[in-house]
Amino acid sequence: MSRFLNRQLRRLTPYTPGEQPRDRRYIKLNTNESPYPPSQAVLDALDAEAVANLRLYSDPESKFLKAKLAETYAVGENQVFVSNGSDEALNFAFMAYADRGVAFPDITYGFYPVFCDLYGFSPTVIPLKADFSISPEDYFGQKGLVVIANPNAPTGLTLSLEDIEAIVRKNPDSVVLVDEAYVDFGAQSAVSLTARYDNLLVVQTFSKSRSLAGARLGFAIGHADLIADLQTIQYSTNPYNINRLTQLAGVAALESDGYYKDNCKRIIQTRQKTAEELAKLGFLLTDSKANFLFAKHPRFAGKELYEKLKDSGILIRHFQKERISDYNRITVGSEEEMQALLAAIKTIIGGNV
Amino acid sequence: MSRFLNRQLRRLTPYTPGEQPRDRRYIKLNTNESPYPPSQAVLDALDAEAVANLRLYSDPESKFLKAKLAETYAVGENQVFVSNGSDEALNFAFMAYADRGVAFPDITYGFYPVFCDLYGFSPTVIPLKADFSISPEDYFGQKGLVVIANPNAPTGLTLSLEDIEAIVRKNPDSVVLVDEAYVDFGAQSAVSLTARYDNLLVVQTFSKSRSLAGARLGFAIGHADLIADLQTIQYSTNPYNINRLTQLAGVAALESDGYYKDNCKRIIQTRQKTAEELAKLGFLLTDSKANFLFAKHPRFAGKELYEKLKDSGILIRHFQKERISDYNRITVGSEEEMQALLAAIKTIIGGNV
Repeated sequence: MSRFLNRQLRRLTPYTPGEQPRDRRYIKLNTNESPYPPSQAVLDALDAEAVANLRLYSDPESKFLKAKLAETYAVGENQVFVSNGSDEALNFAFMAYADRGVAFPDITYGFYPVFCDLYGFSPTVIPLKADFSISPEDYFGQKGLVVIANPNAPTGLTLSLEDIEAIVRKNPDSVVLVDEAYVDFGAQSAVSLTARYDNLLVVQTFSKSRSLAGARLGFAIGHADLIADLQTIQYSTNPYNINRLTQLAGVAALESDGYYKDNCKRIIQTRQKTAEELAKLGFLLTDSKANFLFAKHPRFAGKELYEKLKDSGILIRHFQKERISDYNRITVGSEEEMQALLAAIKTIIGGNV
Repeated sequence: MSRFLNRQLRRLTPYTPGEQPRDRRYIKLNTNESPYPPSQAVLDALDAEAVANLRLYSDPESKFLKAKLAETYAVGENQVFVSNGSDEALNFAFMAYADRGVAFPDITYGFYPVFCDLYGFSPTVIPLKADFSISPEDYFGQKGLVVIANPNAPTGLTLSLEDIEAIVRKNPDSVVLVDEAYVDFGAQSAVSLTARYDNLLVVQTFSKSRSLAGARLGFAIGHADLIADLQTIQYSTNPYNINRLTQLAGVAALESDGYYKDNCKRIIQTRQKTAEELAKLGFLLTDSKANFLFAKHPRFAGKELYEKLKDSGILIRHFQKERISDYNRITVGSEEEMQALLAAIKTIIGGNV
């Protein structure tokens, strides 16, 4: 930190991304990436001509990409915003709406409190119930911005579309942001509600179900006026926010919808199977509808299990946080990766009986 | 604009990027892109394996890219920050340092006042001299942040390294940001001074001299403490700010230094030749050391010339701004593009004699 940094930022605790150690090869089950590569259409789109054209700026309006998203989700083009990863859309929504107040659960995506710190907002942090579920009523009548991740992370638990709609209806003068980063793995999307409510903003990402974490692409769907707000902030911070190759990759990914839907099905199957195996080994699991499991073992501290798995070459995510420190978040990888995980866990558990 | 947008942002006038009309094919001399493609090494680096790996997050630390930049500019790795275009580095510097005050010229990169609007800062706007040059003394003893583009845009005029150093020395308790977006086309870089001053931040981009505008890559070099400040903000807004392919393209571009230096030489030659031709046609030009010319004709309003060139298929940049509305900024393209420009101008001028 320099002696020049402003007072607000001196107090800031930034977000901690999942670790990326380089000391050995790991099976990476810690950042919820897809085990499957992007579609052939994406590989084809990023050809030599596309690379040669990098000399030119990208389209700041991302017109082709927005048109394809609008077509895919059956909304108007003016209802779509594209962002440099969904984090950028979240950031802009906090900038736009959270100064009057912002509410989110105590256990959820760790970036929400960071945005509050960054801009000096005091959030209303609402505890999840003992079983980690969300009471929709707790979010009625909030001020400014309500943020709900659905499925929630790292619990993987979902709210029904009726519950989401109730929250939207009961906050007519605030914006409700539904963060659907993991929606394609088994939750109901609220996109269909955006036609009826001017205060609903749905944020999704290409990082998980569309195998493009490294391309940095997210999007928001909502009322055209909300989208215009986000665009104003884009043009006031980083007009060319989506690079050329990512715009092309995004369009190509949307054209291979079947491929990605099949991948989601495989991941859901692997999730169910792995959950059953872990339960047999004594783990307690939430009913995760995301591409990760959230699990604890009665005889092992979360941190201990995390560390022992890391020693055996498998990375999972542990959060040293109240209420969930006994748990670990485990990305659903390929079948083979999950077999390796289960084998390693059996060794660890067996060695401690 | 939605009814929810916060008061500060309701008043915002966003930055206007150069137009990208799609009604016909234009010779694009309006956004200062390079007429030459990225190097073969960049094309080779973005291969099928790189695209397949997009399923994985990018390295939030951009370790390889920072190491290569540190080597190229002979600074420590902890003195380098990489950003999603240089606009992101500028944005973060405004966030970090401009709340106590910020000073920049009246005629300079149009994004600086936008950042001030966005965060509610009141800048000290210092007029350029009548000949568009900067008086270094005007920037002595400022508070918070001093921003100098060198070469300046859209004038193309430079300050000497001695003048830059004087500004840095006379602002011991403020940060001096030197925006060197165009430095490779003929100005002296202040990077060498970063070893001696803890209040100097140099920002550069891969968009101009390195033919990667569409990849979105900028960087900052400065004292390790300043770099740590920018990183804190990165990890509080968008940790994975540089996508995987852009990290690879950046490294490959730095490994083809000779290719890009040759391109810069060609662009400088084309600039000199075009400037001479324009002068023969009666234009008044600044002594631009950037990859653009800044020129006015005594018999044509800037806007008129811009519009007539657009009608004939050539885009240049006109700023409807006090003091410079008679001028146009013309990107130095390829030899052929400049011949087409000169021919079109002769037709326009001839038709009005």
